[in-house]
Amino acid sequence: MKLLDRVQSPADLRGLSPEELRQLAQEVREFLIATCSVTGGHIGAGLGVVELTIALHYAFDTPRDQLVWDVGHQGYPHKVLTGRKDQMHTLRQENGISGFLKRTESEYDTFGAGHAATSISAALGIAAGRDLNGQDFKVAAIIGDGSLGSGLAYEALNNAGASDRDFIVVLNDNEMSIAPNVGAMHKYLTSVQRNPIYNRLRSAIGDWADHAKGVFKDAGTLVRRWEESVKAFLTPGVLFEELGFRYFGPIDGHDIPQMIETFKAMREFKGPRLVHVITTKGKGFPAGEHGEKWHALPPGHDPTTGKPLKASTANPNYTAVFGKALGELMDEYERLVVITAAMPSGTGTGTAAKQHPSRFHDVGIAEGHGVTFAAGMATQGARPVVAIYSTFLQRAFDGIVHDVAIQNLPVVFAMDRAGLVGEDGETHAGLYDIAYMLAVPNMTVTAPKDGRELVALLRTAVEHESGPFALRYPRDVPPDLVPHAKEIPVVPHATWEVLRKGENVAILAVGTMVGESLKAADALAAEGLPVTVVNCRYLKPYDATTLAALLATHQQLVVVEEGTVVNGFGAFMASVVAAHDPAVRVHALGVPDRIVYAASRARQLAQCGLDAAGIAARVRALHETEALAG
Amino acid sequence: MKLLDRVQSPADLRGLSPEELRQLAQEVREFLIATCSVTGGHIGAGLGVVELTIALHYAFDTPRDQLVWDVGHQGYPHKVLTGRKDQMHTLRQENGISGFLKRTESEYDTFGAGHAATSISAALGIAAGRDLNGQDFKVAAIIGDGSLGSGLAYEALNNAGASDRDFIVVLNDNEMSIAPNVGAMHKYLTSVQRNPIYNRLRSAIGDWADHAKGVFKDAGTLVRRWEESVKAFLTPGVLFEELGFRYFGPIDGHDIPQMIETFKAMREFKGPRLVHVITTKGKGFPAGEHGEKWHALPPGHDPTTGKPLKASTANPNYTAVFGKALGELMDEYERLVVITAAMPSGTGTGTAAKQHPSRFHDVGIAEGHGVTFAAGMATQGARPVVAIYSTFLQRAFDGIVHDVAIQNLPVVFAMDRAGLVGEDGETHAGLYDIAYMLAVPNMTVTAPKDGRELVALLRTAVEHESGPFALRYPRDVPPDLVPHAKEIPVVPHATWEVLRKGENVAILAVGTMVGESLKAADALAAEGLPVTVVNCRYLKPYDATTLAALLATHQQLVVVEEGTVVNGFGAFMASVVAAHDPAVRVHALGVPDRIVYAASRARQLAQCGLDAAGIAARVRALHETEALAG
Repeated sequence: MKLLDRVQSPADLRGLSPEELRQLAQEVREFLIATCSVTGGHIGAGLGVVELTIALHYAFDTPRDQLVWDVGHQGYPHKVLTGRKDQMHTLRQENGISGFLKRTESEYDTFGAGHAATSISAALGIAAGRDLNGQDFKVAAIIGDGSLGSGLAYEALNNAGASDRDFIVVLNDNEMSIAPNVGAMHKYLTSVQRNPIYNRLRSAIGDWADHAKGVFKDAGTLVRRWEESVKAFLTPGVLFEELGFRYFGPIDGHDIPQMIETFKAMREFKGPRLVHVITTKGKGFPAGEHGEKWHALPPGHDPTTGKPLKASTANPNYTAVFGKALGELMDEYERLVVITAAMPSGTGTGTAAKQHPSRFHDVGIAEGHGVTFAAGMATQGARPVVAIYSTFLQRAFDGIVHDVAIQNLPVVFAMDRAGLVGEDGETHAGLYDIAYMLAVPNMTVTAPKDGRELVALLRTAVEHESGPFALRYPRDVPPDLVPHAKEIPVVPHATWEVLRKGENVAILAVGTMVGESLKAADALAAEGLPVTVVNCRYLKPYDATTLAALLATHQQLVVVEEGTVVNGFGAFMASVVAAHDPAVRVHALGVPDRIVYAASRARQLAQCGLDAAGIAARVRALHETEALAG
Repeated sequence: MKLLDRVQSPADLRGLSPEELRQLAQEVREFLIATCSVTGGHIGAGLGVVELTIALHYAFDTPRDQLVWDVGHQGYPHKVLTGRKDQMHTLRQENGISGFLKRTESEYDTFGAGHAATSISAALGIAAGRDLNGQDFKVAAIIGDGSLGSGLAYEALNNAGASDRDFIVVLNDNEMSIAPNVGAMHKYLTSVQRNPIYNRLRSAIGDWADHAKGVFKDAGTLVRRWEESVKAFLTPGVLFEELGFRYFGPIDGHDIPQMIETFKAMREFKGPRLVHVITTKGKGFPAGEHGEKWHALPPGHDPTTGKPLKASTANPNYTAVFGKALGELMDEYERLVVITAAMPSGTGTGTAAKQHPSRFHDVGIAEGHGVTFAAGMATQGARPVVAIYSTFLQRAFDGIVHDVAIQNLPVVFAMDRAGLVGEDGETHAGLYDIAYMLAVPNMTVTAPKDGRELVALLRTAVEHESGPFALRYPRDVPPDLVPHAKEIPVVPHATWEVLRKGENVAILAVGTMVGESLKAADALAAEGLPVTVVNCRYLKPYDATTLAALLATHQQLVVVEEGTVVNGFGAFMASVVAAHDPAVRVHALGVPDRIVYAASRARQLAQCGLDAAGIAARVRALHETEALAG
């Protein structure tokens, strides 16, 4: 019987010997590689923290002590060891195990995580709540080095370091967040790793000073004072010490006994403290460790190569279309610059970056800075394209309003993964960008119906002189193959496209919903219900001429979008129409006002009625419940 | 003739002697004190940087070189010295000089600023744009120590420090942002100030090493290496050095010659560098220097006391009502905790904080962290009230979605200064909270019509177990005097209040618009047009019962709110009504989709048609242009 089968909860592993723990780590690693080769998932981060996870659950009294994992990509071994091994084959599937931490899934998942860098803030809040309740359990945030580039992590460190709260940060330093790390913090950590003087001496002296009694008490104080004055020599983590943390490390994140010893020792201290653990992302992955490309793997891959078992026959996805066109447009427009937040590969900008390195800026996990930085560049005549996923751009909302829109600067927002995102689930869904972008003055908001129109809108955005311009596109594959950008002209400003003319009902479709609406229209036409279908590629400013024509000739508008139905484009149209033409009724069809959990995108869309069948059903219902004039 | 009258632009001051510069500083200071005693404004920050401003414009070749001032509160002396002295009496008034930096106001205002901590990002963007253009001017961001607690500033430092871009940060350290500073960064800066070993020695050696030639070149390298190894001893700014900046300072921010010498010397270096300048906020203010209460002063105050010349006879404002009730509710609810982002006074939470220090958390200028920290506390059963201005809460939008709403945690958002904010102008307007909060699943969104209802909704929010709860209230004075919170019960969930019954037209009013709508209804009734007025204190979930009753008995709904008309409550209601009852027409009346500039609140509201006269005019127009059935 495998050791792994005997570990149903962290309590079980606390009885194992060092040798057994090492074997357990090996079994967890093999299990994860085998499981993820079927399910897919973000395996690299998990493989890097197998030993760290074992050591943490061994040294801390979980679930009484609370571990707060950052991002959640790191959470796979934690899930395996906290009673969810037998469900891991449902990873990232509908009603299955989440790809991230999730409070409703396990008492060991203390705080949900999907976006990077929330863990220190959340853990500090948990520690403050504990202190309010007069409890005394331990709280530890486990955060990757890439996340330390995020302002949120710094704000939390700054807040924690000024307090004397009993609080632990474990820095999981693998020299790589998602892409190779950038920023001064990264350079700093690298220098710390290479520092030949570790802090063993200092720790030993400090411990003695802390525990000195009787006649040695004053001596202890003196030693402590001396230690303070020379800590920069003996401590590689001076930056964290300056921020108010007691620093331990760096230690080997694959050496279980050393980690257990350190964590146990650290329990005895009070105040904010940080343990610096060095790990290897993707440790033990047969196709090779490290590498941005193993960050996430598709379902059904060969673990020895990391490649999909079945070659994809699909068109390049929207991300790839965007990335290729971006490079082509950078050839054409010398002032076009690109900004990404730690995701050159995820946003498809990496290839263009290699072609034009001087016009590419990876700011790290720092979306807020990226947007304000772009605004600064725009004042100098550059035309920045900020490529950030819809869900992550939420972090830069204030910069969008305050630095870009109020000053009406020509910054382009390329919002990838807008809409439902399938297996990535609720934390990564891009459901709010239409709502929050429409509300911003001076903002042009657009969505392409296919790959070619994405490129056309991107060109239009780059040529747009008078203010910010947003385009949203989905985590999906476009229906078309896209030619070179030079063959694709701009889209005339504030225009829609009537794709099909029908009667009574006009479907105003946004982005991905254009294709589904056309399919719905086919089905409805076959039933004798011909409907109009409009591609509303400009959400704001909308095409007032076409809208007026539609209002004159239709009784009902059905607005379909892949975004929240509360105050999306449908509500915008409803308010415009309600004031101008009360005879026409507007129905908003979008993602319902609730959290949509992980499932395939197709399933999610169907659940929300955002596929051809759902759209057709909605239109059919309008005909059935009302007397529509023929 | 005063020196100040001879200085029409920075070029003029470059010809002055050190003694004349000192006199100029005195004249600028006297001018600002006299001017602001009439106009009011944020004088403290400006008085602290008079000498710094003179030294910067002297040492740098402005406007060719670009200065980027953080927040803009610091910008008053800069405005006086860049040709705007004669307009300063119009400060913060309609069509007058902005209280912040503004690109459209002067070529010397390189980047608009209102929110803290944007300057380093913007300046780095300007420097990147400059480099793209092959230009060689200097770029300097001037940022206060309080802003360094913001994640945005850190993200920018982290990004800049990893680059070798020619880029300067001037740290204006007055040991106080708006409130006394908090956070580890503050402790750190204080320790640096007290460090007896300045970096003169190091600078001298380093300069020599940098410029060593011929046979000394290798010696220079050796010295540089030695210097690196001991920099923590010789350099107080080790934290900035670790982040990749070359550190200079600290220097006296009221010693003009020393600053000019330092800035001029610094021009000769390349790469990111930071000058640490120590200033006294409110320097020379007759009523005393320092002090959170001199942060902003009202128009018409006595400069020797800082007090208004005319005693106010108005009721306590919403902020004060909120603060008092918060303290009273903290007495009652032991789990109520309060979080503010560097604004205990501005949010009215300071008094409650003093009464309950263990349940009060000032996280510094760190709104994102504050919200995620609150979410962490909520998991432990605490009931956090996050008190942040509507405009600043934009910085925490991602935490609201990702950490609070998705996990459905009971965090209360007290959004002060929601709506138009008068003289604070466009950067501080709270116009988007209705739009961005309505779009968030699980969020309850409310707005009180008066002070009593603010307290009632606050109690309701604190008792609300099932998810987040937002309340918005204005920068204004409520119409009522408010009793002790214990006398004010909760507001039943999802209920509206029909305040006046009329015919044909129902006004759905939000918050501040309830009072104005009642006045409008009085005027309309006198003209024979009796209208219904409803207090829509719950925006989401709305009162479906009352709405249905209104739809059955009215032909037109006019939704009035002090927020953006694009996808505010009006659009929400339009989309609900459009789908359910097309016979009823919905008109959304709100702040138009453009930037609204500084003016008195009354003027701003009138401009937007959001006063009794504007609302009545809108209703009257409905009667005139259409045949409303009697």
